Amino acid sequence: MNLEDTLERYSSIVENELGKYFESLRLEAGGYHPSILESYKRLEEYVRRKGKRLASCSTLLTYEGYGGKIDEKILRVAVGVEIYRHSILIHDDLADKDETRRGGKSLHVMFSEVHGVRLGEGLSMFIGDIAYALSLEAVLTSGFEKERLLRVVNLFTESYRRVNESQILDLLFEREEPSVEEWYTMASKRATSLFTTTMVTGAILGGAPEEDIEVLRSAATHIGYAFDIQDDIIDTFATEQQYGRCPGGDLRKGKKPLHVVLMLELGGDEDLKIFRKLSGKGVLNGEELEILKEMLRRSGALDAAKAESIKHARKAKDFIAKTKMKEKSKKFFEDFTDYITQSLEWYR
Amino acid sequence: MNLEDTLERYSSIVENELGKYFESLRLEAGGYHPSILESYKRLEEYVRRKGKRLASCSTLLTYEGYGGKIDEKILRVAVGVEIYRHSILIHDDLADKDETRRGGKSLHVMFSEVHGVRLGEGLSMFIGDIAYALSLEAVLTSGFEKERLLRVVNLFTESYRRVNESQILDLLFEREEPSVEEWYTMASKRATSLFTTTMVTGAILGGAPEEDIEVLRSAATHIGYAFDIQDDIIDTFATEQQYGRCPGGDLRKGKKPLHVVLMLELGGDEDLKIFRKLSGKGVLNGEELEILKEMLRRSGALDAAKAESIKHARKAKDFIAKTKMKEKSKKFFEDFTDYITQSLEWYR
Repeated sequence: MNLEDTLERYSSIVENELGKYFESLRLEAGGYHPSILESYKRLEEYVRRKGKRLASCSTLLTYEGYGGKIDEKILRVAVGVEIYRHSILIHDDLADKDETRRGGKSLHVMFSEVHGVRLGEGLSMFIGDIAYALSLEAVLTSGFEKERLLRVVNLFTESYRRVNESQILDLLFEREEPSVEEWYTMASKRATSLFTTTMVTGAILGGAPEEDIEVLRSAATHIGYAFDIQDDIIDTFATEQQYGRCPGGDLRKGKKPLHVVLMLELGGDEDLKIFRKLSGKGVLNGEELEILKEMLRRSGALDAAKAESIKHARKAKDFIAKTKMKEKSKKFFEDFTDYITQSLEWYR
Repeated sequence: MNLEDTLERYSSIVENELGKYFESLRLEAGGYHPSILESYKRLEEYVRRKGKRLASCSTLLTYEGYGGKIDEKILRVAVGVEIYRHSILIHDDLADKDETRRGGKSLHVMFSEVHGVRLGEGLSMFIGDIAYALSLEAVLTSGFEKERLLRVVNLFTESYRRVNESQILDLLFEREEPSVEEWYTMASKRATSLFTTTMVTGAILGGAPEEDIEVLRSAATHIGYAFDIQDDIIDTFATEQQYGRCPGGDLRKGKKPLHVVLMLELGGDEDLKIFRKLSGKGVLNGEELEILKEMLRRSGALDAAKAESIKHARKAKDFIAKTKMKEKSKKFFEDFTDYITQSLEWYR
């Protein structure tokens, strides 16, 4: 099965499970207070928006890779993984004041429209907190053996801390010009943490041999870097049609994706002056965005960032090959890293 | 030993442990990135401000009540309990835009002064997230037996979800006039969750018999209500000297403590008109606050709220008496509920 078919098949299983999960959550909340029910309904709409479900699919595929059978237990964990991922996105949207997410409004925007900005922002912060608690709850009630549950809770906790540390740096770098080393410090806790959590969760619960856990951690780290760099390139270089929303958001906010950090090192003085004037300016018109993109191309920063992504994708594949996962699962992660590498060519 | 001496003795043990904990956290963060170190230093200052440490003292006393000896293991959990409590306070300050906490600036104010409001608020939200992860991490690394750890993690997760549900209602009630029943729905997840978490954690780790766990849950719930109602009365009726900060904050923000909810039921039409005009007005001068206080007295709402607090304190004592805790621990919780009841007399 090719990557697209696999993702579609597994994500539809996860989406079905999310539906059942939120139905019972709604029943429970309805007995508590109408405003809590309303809040959970908004959370449900946000989490259930159409997406690739890469996070939970990674967990399911790793689990199967070590002989696990897809059943209620692992699907409950997959629900936890999806809600975990969204708990991070809710706070990310809020801190960045992003108004949309996957083709819909971000949660703080939905709440602010009804309750005003202060209450709306507070409500979405609390819903983000609740989502994280729900994700742990889903894991804890999955029915796996206690020793393994404890290890997975450890993973979720470590990852949540690291992702939030990364978020702090991501915010502060808006006002700074970080080095490549600092970019890696920041990114080492971001997508890398997420892939580590999703893949190692599947491995622990699937009963992977101990030596494979470490190999998977390395694989996940490199998948994370490859993905992170590619994802940021998309934000700058995709057309609105390819991206589904307005490109250039990171640049407008003064974010420092790797291709920008590299340009700060590779660019000429004249370029840097223009970049500093335009970056973080807030509204960028089409022409200004083109100027920035041209500078990123001309300085060699775009190509250098792509080369980094490809390097990590290659390392990821090497580590995946070293695991004892079944062929089908290996193929999924290999296809996924190939997809990242190939898709880089679409953005110039 | 009387209540004050007990609290002082146990809190100084916890404070000493918090010092050691944050020292190692600083060492770790220093190797990661200076901005993360800086963030943890601010968290440390916030958590280590002088306080009664009721939360962790409750855990230690319950633990001892079931034969546990105060050692490194339970002190690590006590650190987790304190950090857990503060993770909630950080987000609470931020949602309510409170500028001070226990005689110092709230975290979002500290960050905003350095980085501006948007970044400052984002940073304090992320530090709150990290604090919750750190609290779980402290529990998970405490060295207790795995079965018990899992139960404590369950408690922390359930409580975090419930507290945040309560926070949602607390925010929404600013714009509403909740009934007494709704107030209880909101409050049933707030201080009650906190006391349940702190006391049941000590009981589980101390090896309490199963039947005692349920009794303690009931005791904690009633301590929570008694404390919550008293705490809110203080916010309205304490003098600035008694309170250490400007009283009337809840009324200014349009919060609905029980004494206000009761006045909405007991007050005459004329009073309600005045109340609706002044409540949530933002700045209240001394005279306006006095008008509101007088209405709360005259309507009987203050006395009715006090009677509720006393009722819960009495029930709490009954449940405490039913447990098999050692006398010293029972006495601590009995003295604490007596203290709540007696202190109500200071606020008129």
